[in-house]
Amino acid sequence: MVGHSGCFVMEELFARRMTHVHRSFIRAIEQSCSAVLRQDGRDALQYSTTEGYAPLRECIAARYRERKNLVVDPDEILITTGSQQGIDLVAKVFLDEGDPVLLERPGYLGAIQAFSIFMPTFHSVEMQQDGIEASAFREVCETIGPKLFYTVPNFQNPSGITYSETRRREVSDVLKNGDTLLLEDDPYGELRFVGEDLPSFRSYLGGKAILLGSFSKIVIPSFRLGWICASKRLLERLIIPKQAADLHTNYFCQRVIHHFLSENDIDRHIDRIRAAYRRQRDKMVQMVEENFPEEVKITRPEGGMFLWVTLPEGISSMDLFKIALDENVAFVPGAPFYVDGGGENTLRLNFSNVDEHTIEEGMLRLAAAIKRLLPPKFQASDEINPNPQN
Amino acid sequence: MVGHSGCFVMEELFARRMTHVHRSFIRAIEQSCSAVLRQDGRDALQYSTTEGYAPLRECIAARYRERKNLVVDPDEILITTGSQQGIDLVAKVFLDEGDPVLLERPGYLGAIQAFSIFMPTFHSVEMQQDGIEASAFREVCETIGPKLFYTVPNFQNPSGITYSETRRREVSDVLKNGDTLLLEDDPYGELRFVGEDLPSFRSYLGGKAILLGSFSKIVIPSFRLGWICASKRLLERLIIPKQAADLHTNYFCQRVIHHFLSENDIDRHIDRIRAAYRRQRDKMVQMVEENFPEEVKITRPEGGMFLWVTLPEGISSMDLFKIALDENVAFVPGAPFYVDGGGENTLRLNFSNVDEHTIEEGMLRLAAAIKRLLPPKFQASDEINPNPQN
Repeated sequence: MVGHSGCFVMEELFARRMTHVHRSFIRAIEQSCSAVLRQDGRDALQYSTTEGYAPLRECIAARYRERKNLVVDPDEILITTGSQQGIDLVAKVFLDEGDPVLLERPGYLGAIQAFSIFMPTFHSVEMQQDGIEASAFREVCETIGPKLFYTVPNFQNPSGITYSETRRREVSDVLKNGDTLLLEDDPYGELRFVGEDLPSFRSYLGGKAILLGSFSKIVIPSFRLGWICASKRLLERLIIPKQAADLHTNYFCQRVIHHFLSENDIDRHIDRIRAAYRRQRDKMVQMVEENFPEEVKITRPEGGMFLWVTLPEGISSMDLFKIALDENVAFVPGAPFYVDGGGENTLRLNFSNVDEHTIEEGMLRLAAAIKRLLPPKFQASDEINPNPQN
Repeated sequence: MVGHSGCFVMEELFARRMTHVHRSFIRAIEQSCSAVLRQDGRDALQYSTTEGYAPLRECIAARYRERKNLVVDPDEILITTGSQQGIDLVAKVFLDEGDPVLLERPGYLGAIQAFSIFMPTFHSVEMQQDGIEASAFREVCETIGPKLFYTVPNFQNPSGITYSETRRREVSDVLKNGDTLLLEDDPYGELRFVGEDLPSFRSYLGGKAILLGSFSKIVIPSFRLGWICASKRLLERLIIPKQAADLHTNYFCQRVIHHFLSENDIDRHIDRIRAAYRRQRDKMVQMVEENFPEEVKITRPEGGMFLWVTLPEGISSMDLFKIALDENVAFVPGAPFYVDGGGENTLRLNFSNVDEHTIEEGMLRLAAAIKRLLPPKFQASDEINPNPQN
């Protein structure tokens, strides 16, 4: 995992920086810090409960009801140190060495990394335009019986793909009768800018689905505030390693976020992020369409932060990475997202972390880099190319 | 561990509440929150590096140099989500199922809980007045060869015991040539109110000692800010599960603590805590001496937060716990601190979390409860006891 790790640090942390941190937002956070300290500073600086601040858990449960039509009890919420900790805790409780874990192909690198520590056996099934390939999914479930299926159903990291409602139902039908737990990681779910929200797997699978959520993408990354939503029976098992891991999540920041959510229009704040990401995605897609050779395929995400690029077979995104770095453009080569090999011709682009102007310039450079790499047969015949480099 | 867990939540979290949170301290924290947000809010709310905020790591390294005469490079510091996470990460990296782990008897419950998840084999050696019993320690190390020895050398939780310099040297001599890692957990080290600071095990063992530290006892518990200090070689291994666990520790609060440490006289702040704890400890010891039957033995801690009580053999602290609860006095029964049984006649008192007046009243009630429990032979013969309850 060390090889993955370097790449993961570099891109996952820095390239996910929010572009839209307005002065007014920072002021609102400052006001919430002050209000919490003035009104209840003595308590807000003390140790607290492992489960998390009760009013914050109530907020999260209420939002599930309002936005997702999910009946969630606040007692089914455990506040975690980022949703990344949710993955770690679930792995700790449910995985023994060699246990089969089913992932999407490509799959989220942070999950692969967290699971790897517990040395499971990875299996993966290809992602299609509307979610995981259903028949292969069924076959793996029936033959392997995974302990856990980890999925990012909305605007997946890294592919940007969203499961259709049909695909959600098919996956749930397969899992309904087995012992496989479904772990639904949904950090980007609120960042939809095209189409309608689709049901959570919990709607279909009830207590067999564990949900992970996060404030990182909609409020503040640096606070490391996320949550696990699970049946009380499962949550009781998860609280034990949570306590052993860090006693409880930063309580002051739980209070600050709760105050911020109570005193500010979070939906307006999210709308702003959404609008910006949409503009940036549109610009990125437009630039691909106008400038990339047509043999290069991309996803067209309905939300989130990522867009997935597939180069022609045999073209290495690592080779492209080196050329692009010379041009001062970075992306994440796709291979590390494949636990069982492959994906050498894929890469992930992030449209959330730079403005449209920078996207425009970056994509031009990337297009030039791709053209340098593609053999002549891929070059459009009508293109004027006075100085071919291949 | 579920049984332990309930007790642990109840007492470890709530009973460790700081009594000395002054208004001026809360104001200083508020000022640091504001300053960080105004000066560098955009960065302070973003993702950051797994290792932690570099200037904070420099502060910690500098403090090791100044206070402990330890040469520590900032690159040897990894910021963790409380020192509890340090235990968890070390366990994750170094422990496989069945691996021998050596603990102090009694030993810190949070460490027992964190290690338990990785299913090691526990061994423990009795604590004496000046640290772990040296000949038994040597024997266990020579026969079992523990992967890890976990120790709280200063004002141990739960016993309040501090290792003498001789004992530190004896332990180090045993470990110098073997493969056992020593994990020194030192959350209370700055809270010495009697005597002189003694060397860290790192002075004797170098890279074979991993140190854990925490801001919880000297600045703010709710921030969950601690650190691991280890050789670069070991730290590189620990960063991987740290990243998988929560990407990085709350970065905003790292910035706030760093600002607070830069702008305030932390030594004066700690002096105040120390002075208060000393008064409270003195009061508690005095109340024991004046009111407890003389067959009840206590430790006399030179710092920290805890005092250890040993009841006469055969008297159960769980029975006492029930009686004391009726009197509205709580303590932690000692048995859970013994991984391999025993300790039923012991209990932990905490002198850090209530003022002297409350200690006086509480200890009178506890003395009365003990007297109700002790059989008549233990009652002092000259005592007037018109209404004996035993």
